[in-house]
Order: sequence, then C-alpha cells, then structure tokens
Amino acid sequence: MAGGGEGIREIQQPGEYQYTFGPYAEPIARVRRGETVVVHTVDAFGDKLTSEDQAPTSVLGPYLNPQTGPIYVEGAEPGDTLVVTIEAIEPARDWAVSCLVPYFGGLTSTRFTATLQPPLEERVWVYQRTPSGGFAWRDQWEIPWAPFFGTIGTAPHIEAIASLAPGAHGGNMDVPDVTVGNTLYFPVHHPGALFYTGDAHAAQGQGELCGVALEIAARGTFTFDIIKGRAIEWPRIESPDAIMTVGSARPMEDAARIAYSELVLWLEKDYGFDRLDAYQLLSQAGGLYVGNMVDPNYSLVAKCPKRYLEGRQRPTPGEPPTPPEVAV
Amino acid sequence: MAGGGEGIREIQQPGEYQYTFGPYAEPIARVRRGETVVVHTVDAFGDKLTSEDQAPTSVLGPYLNPQTGPIYVEGAEPGDTLVVTIEAIEPARDWAVSCLVPYFGGLTSTRFTATLQPPLEERVWVYQRTPSGGFAWRDQWEIPWAPFFGTIGTAPHIEAIASLAPGAHGGNMDVPDVTVGNTLYFPVHHPGALFYTGDAHAAQGQGELCGVALEIAARGTFTFDIIKGRAIEWPRIESPDAIMTVGSARPMEDAARIAYSELVLWLEKDYGFDRLDAYQLLSQAGGLYVGNMVDPNYSLVAKCPKRYLEGRQRPTPGEPPTPPEVAV
Amino acid sequence: MAGGGEGIREIQQPGEYQYTFGPYAEPIARVRRGETVVVHTVDAFGDKLTSEDQAPTSVLGPYLNPQTGPIYVEGAEPGDTLVVTIEAIEPARDWAVSCLVPYFGGLTSTRFTATLQPPLEERVWVYQRTPSGGFAWRDQWEIPWAPFFGTIGTAPHIEAIASLAPGAHGGNMDVPDVTVGNTLYFPVHHPGALFYTGDAHAAQGQGELCGVALEIAARGTFTFDIIKGRAIEWPRIESPDAIMTVGSARPMEDAARIAYSELVLWLEKDYGFDRLDAYQLLSQAGGLYVGNMVDPNYSLVAKCPKRYLEGRQRPTPGEPPTPPEVAV
Amino acid sequence: MAGGGEGIREIQQPGEYQYTFGPYAEPIARVRRGETVVVHTVDAFGDKLTSEDQAPTSVLGPYLNPQTGPIYVEGAEPGDTLVVTIEAIEPARDWAVSCLVPYFGGLTSTRFTATLQPPLEERVWVYQRTPSGGFAWRDQWEIPWAPFFGTIGTAPHIEAIASLAPGAHGGNMDVPDVTVGNTLYFPVHHPGALFYTGDAHAAQGQGELCGVALEIAARGTFTFDIIKGRAIEWPRIESPDAIMTVGSARPMEDAARIAYSELVLWLEKDYGFDRLDAYQLLSQAGGLYVGNMVDPNYSLVAKCPKRYLEGRQRPTPGEPPTPPEVAV
Repeated sequence: MAGGGEGIREIQQPGEYQYTFGPYAEPIARVRRGETVVVHTVDAFGDKLTSEDQAPTSVLGPYLNPQTGPIYVEGAEPGDTLVVTIEAIEPARDWAVSCLVPYFGGLTSTRFTATLQPPLEERVWVYQRTPSGGFAWRDQWEIPWAPFFGTIGTAPHIEAIASLAPGAHGGNMDVPDVTVGNTLYFPVHHPGALFYTGDAHAAQGQGELCGVALEIAARGTFTFDIIKGRAIEWPRIESPDAIMTVGSARPMEDAARIAYSELVLWLEKDYGFDRLDAYQLLSQAGGLYVGNMVDPNYSLVAKCPKRYLEGRQRPTPGEPPTPPEVAV
Repeated sequence: MAGGGEGIREIQQPGEYQYTFGPYAEPIARVRRGETVVVHTVDAFGDKLTSEDQAPTSVLGPYLNPQTGPIYVEGAEPGDTLVVTIEAIEPARDWAVSCLVPYFGGLTSTRFTATLQPPLEERVWVYQRTPSGGFAWRDQWEIPWAPFFGTIGTAPHIEAIASLAPGAHGGNMDVPDVTVGNTLYFPVHHPGALFYTGDAHAAQGQGELCGVALEIAARGTFTFDIIKGRAIEWPRIESPDAIMTVGSARPMEDAARIAYSELVLWLEKDYGFDRLDAYQLLSQAGGLYVGNMVDPNYSLVAKCPKRYLEGRQRPTPGEPPTPPEVAV
Repeated sequence: MAGGGEGIREIQQPGEYQYTFGPYAEPIARVRRGETVVVHTVDAFGDKLTSEDQAPTSVLGPYLNPQTGPIYVEGAEPGDTLVVTIEAIEPARDWAVSCLVPYFGGLTSTRFTATLQPPLEERVWVYQRTPSGGFAWRDQWEIPWAPFFGTIGTAPHIEAIASLAPGAHGGNMDVPDVTVGNTLYFPVHHPGALFYTGDAHAAQGQGELCGVALEIAARGTFTFDIIKGRAIEWPRIESPDAIMTVGSARPMEDAARIAYSELVLWLEKDYGFDRLDAYQLLSQAGGLYVGNMVDPNYSLVAKCPKRYLEGRQRPTPGEPPTPPEVAV
Repeated sequence: MAGGGEGIREIQQPGEYQYTFGPYAEPIARVRRGETVVVHTVDAFGDKLTSEDQAPTSVLGPYLNPQTGPIYVEGAEPGDTLVVTIEAIEPARDWAVSCLVPYFGGLTSTRFTATLQPPLEERVWVYQRTPSGGFAWRDQWEIPWAPFFGTIGTAPHIEAIASLAPGAHGGNMDVPDVTVGNTLYFPVHHPGALFYTGDAHAAQGQGELCGVALEIAARGTFTFDIIKGRAIEWPRIESPDAIMTVGSARPMEDAARIAYSELVLWLEKDYGFDRLDAYQLLSQAGGLYVGNMVDPNYSLVAKCPKRYLEGRQRPTPGEPPTPPEVAV
C-alpha cells in the first residue's frame, strides 16, 4: 500500500516535537484499531543540518531525535500489545545528511566511555538522491535506498526516556528491520499506548558506526492493531521470513542475552517448543546482528527464520494475559 | 547539628510519593538558600515489608524506592550547582529489613543479564536495633549503624528517571559516602533544582550485593546552598578528608571512567593541576570503590585525599560558568 | 577444488591433539607456500559425545576443542601475514552433536558471569545427516549443511592460549564466515606461522547461543600463502562479496570496536580511503554480526561489501612492513 | 621478619626473566614447605626507564612485567592450595618511576577499547625516596611507602598467560592488599605449583588509573606453605582484619561477580554460613574495591571483616578435596 494515498489521514506534529518517550505529553492524534495513517517526521537534527560547511555543534540544539507523537491508539490498554505494520516509507526530500558529533559514535570515547583524549574532528557529509533512488556522496559512493525509522515505540510505565535512548519501550533502537513490509510489536503501559516515531534513515549500516545514519525527513505509512490481553516485555519484529526480538542494554552482551532469551520464550509460548529445545534450535539457526553500538543502550536483534515454525501453533490475539512481573 | 531540633522545619511528603526523578511533578516544599530542614523518608519498600514470613513479590507494588520531593531550592537556576550538606540521619524506627527479590541482585541473573535459569528463592531478613545502635539479625550478626541515603539528587533535563536508577542526576547511587558530615554537589537543570531523596539505609556493604541494604525509614537533616554560575556534569561528594566523584553507567568500567575523569577535571579546574599530572597523582593516591553493582546503572566512587590538595586554590562560588555541553 | 583428491597430502594429528594455540609444541607437518593440503580434525569433544543418553560432564575430559597442529608454513616469518584459503570442508561422519554443558552458554550464568543459581540441566541433541546433506534432529527440524571451522589461527607471541578462547591470533572465533570459498588472514609471530585448526561445525547460528554448535569431525582442504613483510593485528576474512575483520574481546562492544576500527584502517591503508570517510562509509554500509557470545572472548565480525571497493587500490604482497607496535 | 636476614636464602633470576605465567619454563629454585626466602624482582620495565627525558616507547621492549620464577614449592601437587605469606618488602633503590604509555591506561582508548582518536602524549614521572620513606615527585607531592607486588601467582593448567594479564592464577592483579603481613592463597595445577612474582610497586592508587604505578625494583620476603587436598578456583588474601577474594575478568561487573561469589562460597564452606545468609551478610558488611581498571582483565577485591567470623569454624589444612570442576 502506498503512503499518502487518497483518503489516508496525514499526521503532522502540531507544535513542538517531543524529545522523550513518556506519559507526560498530550496526544497529537487518535487512530482507530485497523486504521492506516501517514506520519510525517523531521530528521534527527530537526532538519537544521543542511550543509557540509556547518559545524554540527554550532547548529544543533541541546536535544536530538525530535519525535512525532504521542499518537493515541484507541482500544489499547495496559497489558495489551501494540501492533504496527509499516506499509511504506517515502523520503520527504532529495538529500540526506550524516556527520561526526564530538564524543559521540562507535569509534570515539564518549560521555560514558570517558577518556582524556580530544574528540575527533566535526565533519558533515551531505548525500544527494540519485535517479535510481539511492543516495550518493559526491562521486565517491552511493548507498541504496533502504529506509527505516531509527526511533519508534510506546510510552514507558512512569519514565520519560530521552528519544536518543532505546529500551524495552522501543525508542532509538536504530534497527534496519524497522522497515517496509514488517510488523512491530510493542508493550502497552497506558491507555492508547502513546506511540511515537521519528529519526528516519535513508539507509544505515549495522551498528550505526559513527552514530549518525543517512538522516532524512520522511513520511511513514503505518497500520495500527492491538493484541488484547497479551503483554510482551520487549519489542518484537515480524518480517515475511523471520520473527525477531530486540534487546537494548549495556554492556552489549546483555542486549544479546535479552534478545535471545525473549526469542526462546516466544518460541516456547507461541510455537509450542520445549524451552531448551528452542534454546538448541536458535544455537544452530538463529541470527544476531547489531542495530546500534552508539546509543545510551546498544540494540541487538535476534532472529529465527520462519521455516522452522511451519506447522506450529500461531499466536492468537485475545488470549488470556501472561502474569504481570514485578517491575524492579 | 541535631536533626529535628526546635525551629527546624520538617518536610513530609503530602500525598503520593514520587517514583521518578523528573521535572513533571509539583514541588512539595520550598527551601531558602542556607536553610536547614528535616526531610522524612519511608523505606525502599514503602514500609510494607515488615516480617520474615512475607514473600516480597506478594507484598510489594510495581515500583520501589518512593521519594520525598521534589523540593524547590530558591535561587537555583539551570547552570548552577546545588550544594547539600547532610547534618544528621536518624532512624524512624527500631528495625531494618533486607530481602531477596527474584531476578534482582548482584549474584543472580536479572532482567538485563537474562538467563534461562530459575531465580533464587525469596527470603526476608528483619534486623532489630540494639542498645549500641547497631542492627542485629537474630543472634547471628550485628551491623554497626552507618546510615546514608541510597537515593538523592535533582531533576534531569527532560527525562523522568525511575528512582531505582542512578545517573548524572544522582538518583539511586547507593553510595555509603552520602552520609552525615559530608557535602553533596548536584547539577541544576531547572529553576529550584527540584531535589529528591529517599531509600535510607541503616548500613550497606560496598556493592549492595543482594540488591537490598538495611532498609529503614529515616529523618535526614539537610542544609541547602547553591554555587551560582558553575555547572557540573556528575555528582560530587566532599568529606572532611577527601573529595569524591560518582560515575553511574554500564558496564562497570564506564562508571569508573566517568568517576575518575570527572575527578581529574575537578583537580585541574579547581586546584590548578596540570591535567596529566592530576591523572598521575590519582594513579598513585586515588581511591575507587563500588557503591552498587545491582541497579540499572552501577555506581563507582573515585576519591582524592585532601592532603594532596593543601595550599592549592579552592573553588569560588560565583565564578563564571563553564561552557554548556551539547546533550547527546 | 575438491578436498582429498589425488595427490593432495592428508595431514592427521600424529599423537596428542593440542589444546592451546602457542609456540611450545613441535610442528606436526610442514607445508609449502601455495600448497594445498587436507587437514583432518576431530570434533570439539574429541569425538567422545555420541549419544543422547550421555551426560556431557561424565564423558568429557578437562579440556575441549582439540586442535590439529601446529602446521609449519615454510617461508612465513614474524611480521608477515599468513593467507589461508578454505577450498572444501567435508564431513567425516553422518551425524553431528550438540549439548548443554553446566555453566557454559549464552543464556546461563557462567564461570565468569558468576551467580548463585543452579545450572541448567545437561542435555544432548544428536542430529542425523539427511539425503539432502542437512542435519536433522529427530523429526523436529533440519539444519542445512553450512560448514565452517570454529577454531583456526596461528601461534601468539609468547602466550599459549586455550583452544576455547578467541583472540588476535584467531582461535575459537566460532565465526560462520570461516568457510568454503573464503580466504583468511592471520598475524605471523613465529617462523612457520604455526597454524592450528579444529572444532568443525556442520552449521551454527550467529552467537552460538548455547555454546555448542553442530559439532562434527571433518576434513578441511586448505591452500596456504604468505604476504611478506606486511603485519596485521587481528584476523581478516575475504569472501567473494566482502572483506571482513574479526574482533574478539569482552565486553562485546570492545569486540565491535576492534572489528570496525580494524576495518576502517584496512580501507584506509589498502583502498586509499581517508580515515574519516571510511568511518562514514561503514556507518552506512557496514555489516556487524555476532560470531560467538559464549567463549572467553566474544567474537564480532565487521563487513564491507566489495562493491564499495571497485576501482580502488588493492593490497600488494611484498610491500614494506608497517612499523611494529609495542605489545603492552 | 626482615627480609634478607642471615640464613635466609636469596633468589635471583639466573637468566632471562619470564614474561608469562605458565608450565613451560624450568624452575629457577626449589623451596621447602615452611621455608622463608627473599626474592629479588626488577621493575615492570626491566629497570630500563630511568629518566623523565625518555620516551617509554623508545626505551621499552615488546614485553612488560618481567617475572622472577618459576619457583618450585616442594610438596605442592595439583588440587592443593599454595599459601604465601609476605613477610617483608624492601625497595632495591631510592627512586620509583611512572609514565604514560600510548593507548594504555584507564582514561584512554586502548588496543581493546579501540577508537580512532590519537593517543595521549607520552610522559615520565620519576619520584625520589624521601627521608620518611615516601616517594616524592619534585616538590609537588609525596606518596607514602605502601609497597606490594603487582604480579604474583602460579602456573595455569595448560596456558602460558602474559605477565600483563591477571586471572584465576593470580598474575598481574595490581591489588594493594598483596602486601606485608598478608597471606595469599593460589590454586595449584602442577607439581611444585610454579610460583612467579614481580612488578613491585612502592605505592598505587585503587584502579592503577594511568596503568603504571610507582614502579620499583624490590626484594620480597616470602614464606611458603601448602594446604593439601584442597582446591580453590581464584586467588584469596587474608589480612589480620579481613578475608578477601580477587576476581579478574571483563567487563568489570564480571570481576565483581567472581570476587563476591567466591567469598560467599568461602563463608559457606569454611565458616559454616548458609549460602544465602552469607550473601545477605556481605550485602551489609562486604567491601568491594577496584585493584586495576587497566589490564587485559580488571581485578576487583571483595572483602569480609574478620569480626563477623569470630567463633565460627576455621579451615583445616588436610581436609578431603572438593570435587574437581570441568574446565570449560
């Protein structure tokens, strides 16, 4: 389904963009269960970084990753799972931008991995869209169009979490599988779920190495649904070929442990595997890649090909809820 | 100075306790610069865990570490440093409690360090106050009274951070040096600073190994001051004998890097050391211990004995501010 | 080229297998530059785990991952790079085995990530080879044949490193790209390089989740070459489509930093990229997956598609050496 | 007891110093159970760094931390515990040296925590011994004499581990409690235990922040004993006031988990505590400090004051051995 088609509602941020995922802001729109809408997003820098002559630190404000939202999904209640299918992602402009920000990125010391060394130099790369739809940096290289939303998710319980950080709520996961044709699942902690998205990327390598992808303003077409009475702890993704879980934590092995343990439990609960057999199957057939190695939490994606799930029980919306866990 | 003396104002939480450090709650009290007040706190479990026959998970609600606050400190503005001296800590009862909570603690898998193993059993230890002021568990052992506030700090920029997590704002650092006779320094991001505290401990080992100290309701006597126009990035502590910085992060080495790099920069800025000489001095004379190894971030304390600072320049309240850094 | 063909020398371990990568053992064979040989390897358990009725701890000895080697490559000198192309991998039997070993694996506490919880149960899965060449566990699932050597590399400087640990020398990387059609590059620290390999896997998921892949005895066909006078710090892999670097360390983010920084430096040195442009390119086009999350060091693979390298300078064997670095 | 007194044997390295802890070198001396000897050690730089005008990288060879050893302790067999009491440490010269080595230290990127930033500058600090016995750097500061051996331990099973790395065998722990009046316990994996020591420090802060302490040549007076038939997994230390365990691993939280879990098990086995009660006691009374945050593994020390052990069962040399664990 193409985004922005006739009759599809378009949602734009009416006032200030949001810089946290939380329960403290008023919804900007309400969508119905099953409804498809187009959501407009600005880029991670609020569209302010436009030229290779700019120094990022002199242009950017104190916060990054402005979010469109929160969007209230009617019928979602705490303990449900929000289901979001990405129907389309369209670029809102013909260029994308990346840059080096001091003390931010995967191959520099940072505010957390603090050293006494000076930062790497600031630098900006502006890419131009090509006739084939890719994005080229000068005559040096061209990156194919492989769009996704770096930031997406729901409001946490009681926290307001900066839109630079990923977590159990989703947030700034920077996971390329958050893309067209895939379906996402998020925990619901508040009536209406309170959905946010932003930080569209024209493309990004695994790890988002320098901390900045091909940042672009975009329009995303999303369809919303709800699994009533079923809670999940961490975000999940379903593609035509695989089911996936995303763990976000530090150190990186904890993100891996979260992602894979959630996937084991998913195989057990929805596909009828014995728990240790699921552990075994993923040992031989699982995928595990790095979404980001640069954000306040690292995000890792664990993956199980669907061909191992054929003929097994599928999840049924409306099942009785799992017992709530103590939040500690 | 004794807490609760005549003429000292007593501050109690008027309604619901707070479970986040953030800018979204209304202040419960206002204090003047230089004022001394007594703040009443309930224990980390909201005083609900009282017997060794209870199972923590059947008694506790979804959130832990209820905070008294926010308290508005008049005159504090963004870019200042809040100064809090702990004059006294008094127990509000004659018993303290510790326990094991499933999948929480230093020697168990957790929600983040996820494994497929079953949790350790739940168990509660209730300690009784002894005539000497210590706390004894049955006839087995007695822990001397060494009280401090596990949770203390100011509101972050835009985030609301759960009171179980420590960070640059302070929060649940679980650092035993947050105690009587010491002075604490916190960043100010909002008018009034928005100060919170709670989670008093009758005592705690370094690391807070099982995740739960000797939890107690308490009254703390605090004096508030402000260093105008000087910003700090992370909490600092000053005792009669040492200056200290607290870093909170994961993995633990990042907490150590933060704590020690902040201490190097403190020695450079306020005591006139060459930066690499400060690095050298701390290599031979610094202290580094673990406050907690159990919370969403680990907290490490780096320490420089004051005898290495004698005769060197002291910080002067009112100096021009340091340049603000980009928040990323 | 098929392994074991006429005229190709077959190398079998003449006596005890090796359980370390080091300079302290006598070479079992010598190969010439350009020579192709077949190397026989036993499985990670020395072929002793054969039935689902066995408890691994009652069958296995104190060491795992027996290695065939060391093999002396004539002409290799310290400061060179050893080049190993994998021509073929053939199974030496029609079954493969996996299992759970107490306190070993990605979703259990371990000897290093120590907790007080009891271990997961021991369990063995024996897979049978199917007519299609895959390996099936009962009638439950079948894993396609995707063979590689879990353990491969050269002798370190002065250390003897257990064959369970990966590092700068290669070792137990458990990286599926160590497979047929790919070429590997290893540092040379001793005359003859002292090459070892073993731990063949019929297949393995990314991360080697439970710590044990589809373990199998195998014959590998290898061709050896040398790049004279050029030193590398960490292992590299070249496939028809990509160049790759492997970093092995803890925590996992350090493995990622090593892999990607080595890849940046490779792009700079051999393909003429400006260093920060290489950093940028990999931010948008790099791949980063987890080889293992279970060994004493974790191994991550960073990848650059070759289409970004077309028309750029290729490395030339025989160039002057890079300056040696101080080993600290 | 003074070192070097009449009748005490003096052990000096007869030829090349050792740069690994391993089973591959010939013993340089044999000592009897109960014997006291003096061991001479050179400093971490082989006594080659002597002036502030030197650049460390132009003076130092490829390896650091030369060890005196291995020393064969008669009667020690695999499965025993080696007991080493430090009777005295005397400086062998009147100066000590520290320095910055590129890409080595706690507040710089390193070979493992790799970044693209340039290294910090090299710098050397030479300290002179003062009449009070301390070590002064120019007229800037004086560090009290607080000597210990940075590197000490026994040969591992089959590995030869660089003398820069700490581990279960001891090695480069850089723990200030390895000092006069304390007793150390190490695992024995080979007949004679094969004891090594070196890397004396005139003093060192917790964490060994820049990676280099006050390095000095020294004479240590050691008394050797054996606990027959009892195996330990990790090094232990006993002072007049406390028992301690040392964990060495990455990330740092794993070192903390090892140290504290070993201490829990020690309290259970030798002092009769219920395991979870020991966990509780250490939560309220344990100490946890950082020995080093700079070596290939970080070393953390967990501590239990002896006053909590009074009246409880003491360990008895000669007890039956604990069941061996599978080495994985």
